[in-house]
Amino acid sequence: MGSSERAADETFVIASPDTIQTVAEGIRRQMLAHGPDLMLCRVEFDDGAVGSVHRHPHSQATLVVSGRFRATVGGQVQTLGPGDSLYVQPDTDHGVSCLEAGVLIDAFTPAREDFLAVEGSA
Amino acid sequence: MGSSERAADETFVIASPDTIQTVAEGIRRQMLAHGPDLMLCRVEFDDGAVGSVHRHPHSQATLVVSGRFRATVGGQVQTLGPGDSLYVQPDTDHGVSCLEAGVLIDAFTPAREDFLAVEGSA
Repeated sequence: MGSSERAADETFVIASPDTIQTVAEGIRRQMLAHGPDLMLCRVEFDDGAVGSVHRHPHSQATLVVSGRFRATVGGQVQTLGPGDSLYVQPDTDHGVSCLEAGVLIDAFTPAREDFLAVEGSA
Repeated sequence: MGSSERAADETFVIASPDTIQTVAEGIRRQMLAHGPDLMLCRVEFDDGAVGSVHRHPHSQATLVVSGRFRATVGGQVQTLGPGDSLYVQPDTDHGVSCLEAGVLIDAFTPAREDFLAVEGSA
């Protein structure tokens, strides 16, 4: 599916393994439903994979669906398991280390246009 | 936990069954991480439960974690299963009927202050 199709709002997004992309070593991202102001992504982590500390102007909320993660947000550190969640204010350093393989759901506002650009170029 | 504590941003939210609230017949909501501009909720549906069609000024994105749902968004209808997702523009009629018991993750921007008010009064 081309970037021009994805950039528009899609009311329904049916899950497809074709939309899973490796974005770092041991980390795979799947784009879910999104509009310009809100985006959901599913991210799979292998045991030991590291989502390096980074920051962006988007607010983020993340739910641990499965696995175990050591999360750092704005200098605070917490180990999180299934059902636990975190909130990241804009422009705040954050990252995760995967202690046991699992899945995160990330929500962003506004949408991560950088993710859509990567997807469109794939 | 009082509303004054919940109204503030919380970086980490550890899952607790104490935060699960029945919000309609066969529908239970659990507040997850949120800030003023972004909120995650987990919603459990019993088989046959109906999230009536409604609208709000918040954008919404919803992921089906488990179960099977018949979703209506802006007059479009789609049956969704695990991994499928949907996006709702502001002020757009939407609702779900649960065909098989399951769990949805809802993301909203901005935060649903009405949910926080309910929780604070509980």
